Amino acid sequence: MLNKTIIKVHDRDNVAIAIHDIPMGTEVESGIIANQDIPQGHKIALCDIEKGEKIRRYGVVLGYALQDIKMGDWINEYKIELPSLPSLDDMKYGTNLVTDLPEAPLKTFEGYRNPDGGYAGIRNILGITTTVQCVTGILNVAVQKMKKELLPKYPNVDDIVPINHAYGCGVAIHAPEAKTPIRALRNLIRHPNFGGEIMVVSLGCEKLTVDMLLDDDENNAENVIVLQEKSGFQDMIASLMNMADQKLKRLNSRKRETLPLSKLCIGMQCGGSDAFSGITANPSAGYAADLLVQSGATVLFSEVTEVRDGVHLLAERCVNRTVGKKLADEMKWYDRYLEIGGVDRSANPTPGNKKGGLSNIVEKAMGSIAKSGRSPIVEVLSPAERPTKHGLIYAATPASDMVCGPCQLASGISLQVFMTGRGTPYGLAAAPVIKVSSRNDLKDMWNDLIDLTAGDIVTGHATIQEIGTKLFHMIVDTASGVYKPWAEVYGLHNDLCIFNPAPIT
Amino acid sequence: MLNKTIIKVHDRDNVAIAIHDIPMGTEVESGIIANQDIPQGHKIALCDIEKGEKIRRYGVVLGYALQDIKMGDWINEYKIELPSLPSLDDMKYGTNLVTDLPEAPLKTFEGYRNPDGGYAGIRNILGITTTVQCVTGILNVAVQKMKKELLPKYPNVDDIVPINHAYGCGVAIHAPEAKTPIRALRNLIRHPNFGGEIMVVSLGCEKLTVDMLLDDDENNAENVIVLQEKSGFQDMIASLMNMADQKLKRLNSRKRETLPLSKLCIGMQCGGSDAFSGITANPSAGYAADLLVQSGATVLFSEVTEVRDGVHLLAERCVNRTVGKKLADEMKWYDRYLEIGGVDRSANPTPGNKKGGLSNIVEKAMGSIAKSGRSPIVEVLSPAERPTKHGLIYAATPASDMVCGPCQLASGISLQVFMTGRGTPYGLAAAPVIKVSSRNDLKDMWNDLIDLTAGDIVTGHATIQEIGTKLFHMIVDTASGVYKPWAEVYGLHNDLCIFNPAPIT
Repeated sequence: MLNKTIIKVHDRDNVAIAIHDIPMGTEVESGIIANQDIPQGHKIALCDIEKGEKIRRYGVVLGYALQDIKMGDWINEYKIELPSLPSLDDMKYGTNLVTDLPEAPLKTFEGYRNPDGGYAGIRNILGITTTVQCVTGILNVAVQKMKKELLPKYPNVDDIVPINHAYGCGVAIHAPEAKTPIRALRNLIRHPNFGGEIMVVSLGCEKLTVDMLLDDDENNAENVIVLQEKSGFQDMIASLMNMADQKLKRLNSRKRETLPLSKLCIGMQCGGSDAFSGITANPSAGYAADLLVQSGATVLFSEVTEVRDGVHLLAERCVNRTVGKKLADEMKWYDRYLEIGGVDRSANPTPGNKKGGLSNIVEKAMGSIAKSGRSPIVEVLSPAERPTKHGLIYAATPASDMVCGPCQLASGISLQVFMTGRGTPYGLAAAPVIKVSSRNDLKDMWNDLIDLTAGDIVTGHATIQEIGTKLFHMIVDTASGVYKPWAEVYGLHNDLCIFNPAPIT
Repeated sequence: MLNKTIIKVHDRDNVAIAIHDIPMGTEVESGIIANQDIPQGHKIALCDIEKGEKIRRYGVVLGYALQDIKMGDWINEYKIELPSLPSLDDMKYGTNLVTDLPEAPLKTFEGYRNPDGGYAGIRNILGITTTVQCVTGILNVAVQKMKKELLPKYPNVDDIVPINHAYGCGVAIHAPEAKTPIRALRNLIRHPNFGGEIMVVSLGCEKLTVDMLLDDDENNAENVIVLQEKSGFQDMIASLMNMADQKLKRLNSRKRETLPLSKLCIGMQCGGSDAFSGITANPSAGYAADLLVQSGATVLFSEVTEVRDGVHLLAERCVNRTVGKKLADEMKWYDRYLEIGGVDRSANPTPGNKKGGLSNIVEKAMGSIAKSGRSPIVEVLSPAERPTKHGLIYAATPASDMVCGPCQLASGISLQVFMTGRGTPYGLAAAPVIKVSSRNDLKDMWNDLIDLTAGDIVTGHATIQEIGTKLFHMIVDTASGVYKPWAEVYGLHNDLCIFNPAPIT
């Protein structure tokens, strides 16, 4: 698989990837000479390919040649016709259930046990949820004041995080699809890193009423502030400060303890991918996922449009027909959602993906799926649903980094691993994000933003297993509070873009 | 129209509104006794109304009695059947073009002339636009540093405002409806309060490329920073600081000058409305709008679902058939948008509106329309479009406060007037927001959040003309930098929720 100038993934492939920019005339392999300049990450034809013939990478068909292609030609998105969408109605379930997962080097971490007995926290955060965007201005002013005046009093608390979002009013709250954003907010309130403390800020006249988010025994004056019941700005700020002080006091008494990895739930996501993502960063993440799953942890992976073209490979890994059926249903929902909007899966990839050598969504999907490793898929979740099983779980979310992140948070991940080829400074306030680059170039350039590079895999200086094991240790160290990823060090936080497929009114 | 316990809007009405809570047994008018406790703002029957008969307020049919109603009964949303939706295909245009607008007491204000010769700025702000949510984390860290280290050097600059938003990637950029968010962002860059200075932060691999937002002569290294071209976090922050310093230097040299009111473009919006909104705050705003329009200014009003049931009244005020046709087209687009999402206009009003006495969307719409005054409608805009005319303009946006605000900002309003009955701390970072309450109770309770109350109109201590003229002066004083609304004083800013009716990918 290793070569100085190009990398071929599978024996049956008729294309390979340029490891670096290849000038025209370079002999990339015995007898194969580049007919054009070939940019880093882009494909070169390993043999003549006639118009209409299959173009193969990862051993799968990326598409069909739109023209005659000569050996040594540069192949980009303009030369490949997208194959038809894999059918969802005749998939095989459970035919590829791997049992020989690699043994994890350790089985415990240091986390915060949660009162509900569910997944543990890995940070000790006061999360303040809002029912509606209207209260954001007041809450942000209050949170600044809390961070300045209250947080220093409570050294065991890591942060105060407002859950600001665009939902809550001016929305069709009884629309069929409203269940998704409502579920997301209900579950965010109960995030493992928030230690079971509930603090909700409501306006008082919004469509998303507090009783849609809290159970009866939670919906009381100890947990909920309604701004319309307060006597103006000063009273609102004083009330928020007072409630935060009570919650912080309780959070401050929490201590880390040694817990089994089965108390850990993490998410995998990739963004700004390139042609190396699928052979370096994502498979390394997949290996780390296998180690975690083997040791009892729960690992979520997502991004519907980025697995759609490889969904039959996931179906084979579903533990049973029920799980497989839900996988198909989530894909069908998304097919229809895109169709209503007048688009299809070709709306992905991005210009940056294409610059990075990813010609179409099939190629992107094959790389994206690699981050799920080889474990069986024990459950499939609708967007922002909570898992009921431990192990590898497919959480069906949009592929948008900014929407997938909050969905996975709502599903309960306490940490996210984010693989990137082009580079993004992405981060979440409620959970640390570890960033893994697909290339060493990116790590060299963004040394203080990328936590780990998987680029040595391309040059042969490391194996997928080695980088994957490194990543496993970095995940456990981050969970235990020993390591802080760069995004956490610098406080790089993206907005919580809640997925709302229902109309705005 | 005035009465101690109830208020009747129109001679033909068979219901009136409780000015305060009315206990059962109270004689509200000669011979009319309340049969139940009637909450403030709610309707009381002025005569017997048989099942199926029309219920009238504002002289219009709110709906049909769902049961026999006795004189003195409380009428709420459970007793009224929604009438059918007014047809858009047989509306009359231009049949009610008022020419006797009231004379404005003054014609000029002190504003910042803009290099494009268009609407003036009323604040001197460095606006920093983002192509994509990915860069938000970095930009927010940089803006904190700018505010601390740079802003104090430039006393003539009021603020630094990042235009963070959820759009830009993970979206169907070629979907038919993608034009709306893209137009919004293009126009936000050129906001009148940003003084013609362009500063755009891009990641580098996003779907919304810089050339979709900037013209060729604007798209250069003086105006655009691409994070993927920078050597990590420190370099990104240094580049952002450096560009901001250049822009702030130029902005700092600007001075206010006396300008005609024709250089002013403002927006009207209401949120958290109650039954008084339509008889106090909104008609006062309408009178202020008439004064502004008469003096040459441009006034936008919006909120499709909240005018839909009174659209025929707006059609009559459209200056010609072309304007009227666009009004109908925008309404049809929204009808269809709601239908696709499985809902209709009854998704509005909110629980808070109903508590405030607004039984259904017809009643809410009649109150909402009052804020447009009596002026002819010279233009209709699609969401986030820029006006080409001066005068009263209908900007078709969602009614969601959080989505209407950014749409109107993109259309170029430099200031917004916001009427509220239930109370909201709403604010915008890029433009001051004046808040007008429909009731004195709210002003008494939220003295440091509400700028002006129109409640004296109900008690007979003021007329619509008097409050409207007060509001006109407050608008001009705010525009001239003499008055700062409370939301500006406290820095209460809502997120910029860009309207994106296209799919997330």
